[in-house]
Amino acid sequence: MKRRDLFKAAAAVAGTSALARPALAQSTPSITWRLASSYPKSLDTLYGACTVFSSAVSEATDGKFKIQVFAAGEIVPALQVADAVGAGTVEMGQTASYFYIGKDTAFAFGTALPWGLNSRQQSAWLYRAGGLDLLNEFYARHGLYGLPLGNTGTQMGGWFRREIRNRADLSGLKMRIGGLGGNVLQKLGVVPQQIGAGDIYPALEKGTIDAAEFVGPYDDEKLGLAKIAPYYHYPAFWEGGAELSLFISLAKWNELPSSYQSIVRTAAQATGHDMQARYDALNPQALRRVVAAGAQLKPLPLDVLKASYKISHDMYREMSEKNPSFKKIYDHQRAFQKDSQTWVAISDLNYDYLVSTAIQQKWEND
Amino acid sequence: MKRRDLFKAAAAVAGTSALARPALAQSTPSITWRLASSYPKSLDTLYGACTVFSSAVSEATDGKFKIQVFAAGEIVPALQVADAVGAGTVEMGQTASYFYIGKDTAFAFGTALPWGLNSRQQSAWLYRAGGLDLLNEFYARHGLYGLPLGNTGTQMGGWFRREIRNRADLSGLKMRIGGLGGNVLQKLGVVPQQIGAGDIYPALEKGTIDAAEFVGPYDDEKLGLAKIAPYYHYPAFWEGGAELSLFISLAKWNELPSSYQSIVRTAAQATGHDMQARYDALNPQALRRVVAAGAQLKPLPLDVLKASYKISHDMYREMSEKNPSFKKIYDHQRAFQKDSQTWVAISDLNYDYLVSTAIQQKWEND
Repeated sequence: MKRRDLFKAAAAVAGTSALARPALAQSTPSITWRLASSYPKSLDTLYGACTVFSSAVSEATDGKFKIQVFAAGEIVPALQVADAVGAGTVEMGQTASYFYIGKDTAFAFGTALPWGLNSRQQSAWLYRAGGLDLLNEFYARHGLYGLPLGNTGTQMGGWFRREIRNRADLSGLKMRIGGLGGNVLQKLGVVPQQIGAGDIYPALEKGTIDAAEFVGPYDDEKLGLAKIAPYYHYPAFWEGGAELSLFISLAKWNELPSSYQSIVRTAAQATGHDMQARYDALNPQALRRVVAAGAQLKPLPLDVLKASYKISHDMYREMSEKNPSFKKIYDHQRAFQKDSQTWVAISDLNYDYLVSTAIQQKWEND
Repeated sequence: MKRRDLFKAAAAVAGTSALARPALAQSTPSITWRLASSYPKSLDTLYGACTVFSSAVSEATDGKFKIQVFAAGEIVPALQVADAVGAGTVEMGQTASYFYIGKDTAFAFGTALPWGLNSRQQSAWLYRAGGLDLLNEFYARHGLYGLPLGNTGTQMGGWFRREIRNRADLSGLKMRIGGLGGNVLQKLGVVPQQIGAGDIYPALEKGTIDAAEFVGPYDDEKLGLAKIAPYYHYPAFWEGGAELSLFISLAKWNELPSSYQSIVRTAAQATGHDMQARYDALNPQALRRVVAAGAQLKPLPLDVLKASYKISHDMYREMSEKNPSFKKIYDHQRAFQKDSQTWVAISDLNYDYLVSTAIQQKWEND
């Protein structure tokens, strides 16, 4: 946790940029950084986490450490945030690390793997089981220092024009879904499509696509899909708990005074906690509204779930064979997951199940 | 979220103490506060949250805002922390608000109610659904400003010398359990006992008591009860997600510069996130160890769970009739819980159940 050594090491490094050098000279320098988000302002939970974070840093430093937040596309395209940060074009970026699996499949772990960790497990693994150290060892090779910046919780499986009753219903289905989730569904007959959020509605309306996944009720509601693709399947087994990442240029990070590094780490963790709380407060209300607007809640069929689990784990075996970085992190995370799930099953999962049952069956009247 | 107005208001208040007045004079004054914990150092997750918090505040202020942490009994007895903070004897305390239900039953909400919110729901309710504002309106009448400081997650129901197979097995059972959980179990025939943690082992060994609840595997392991009371029942329906509280003297809080207020709020939220992560990382390993040491994992019987749910809600009705503060907060929290649980059931609960099933049934081999 002590970054003073890193700071000293950084101070000793030749070629630190002239721009950042003042940070070394005093413990509370006035600096301004830029943070590029992969999300538009309209996604107020995701983009909003950036402003919560920058406010916390500014307030903690009496306005001396300013972080200017830019929405997707303003200064960096949505899917190039990690590249821009790694190159030092911007000092910071908020993004989903799994956008970059094309560079290296190990970028998946910072966000979510199909059938991977839930929100609390991801936090525990990252912060207290060695996960974040493993990721930063990997990120350093891309010029990045990473911190978790909040989780969405389990997402919805998406909107479908026709109900999915079994595995056969996926055959030939054109679905807006990316990443590893798309790879898994492809092996079940789905034809994954890459479509920007703004184009989902017309594509579904015209029938260019048959289904689309996005996030959960609160974000999905903005797309207005309940009327044109009313079957709202759950859960997104490919995003059981999707974590956002704060990427920081490793060179710039090393130049920060230790007090500012501490403020950034603490603010990122607090912001992460806040983002999950915000989703957990907003999703229940949004779920009621989308159901009122016509959404029909449907579980994904068991044969789809089981097949996707096997396909996912076959895929991880292949990726581990091809990529030692992937294997090293995967083995660590998978061992954690198995261990954790035994405890979850008798604690929170069991309790949540009982509370849901009690409310549904009105045990208070028995 | 802006505390500048509060700060201005505080600055205008007559009679601020001479000791704290320098805080008003400059934006980054050097001050030292004392934080009394209700927990001993041996409980390194609970007590440890205080040192994580004080380190974050110190690092963020370059050592100018020092918070000295004292374990239970060092300067304040464990169960008088809120009183000491309210009286201004110490500036801060870490405690469980439900220790103080003897003063006012509304103190229960800051920690947990039997059959109440889980960890993420408690955070969402407090931070993003208005819960914390309601609590602080109530705490202000006791001279306190409160912030959440981390959750344990769902706890274990405790250690029993004989297995509990049905409701009748609780009759006359002497059990170490306090608070509202004790009140509920009392109506099921249990004789609640107040015993310090250090006295649990000898009391169970001699048969002075028949059962004892504490926290979860990681903390419980230290008591070494697996051999003498091997039936380890779950879950603690009275602590589905127990939140710790950081209580701050309201008068001292109002005197803090806004940058320090912001640092305290952010550090408390980050610390809370860290404490849950720590429990989630440590409990799975500890569970394996206590099982290896002889613990037998047993669910609480359904008739006990159902009866306790009805008794709890009858109790809340009575408390609401007697105490308007309780009623106001209860109605708000209960509405949130019902709304939230509908969403939880199709998102995280559903996903967690599927992952547990998949791991147990080895779907990867199907």
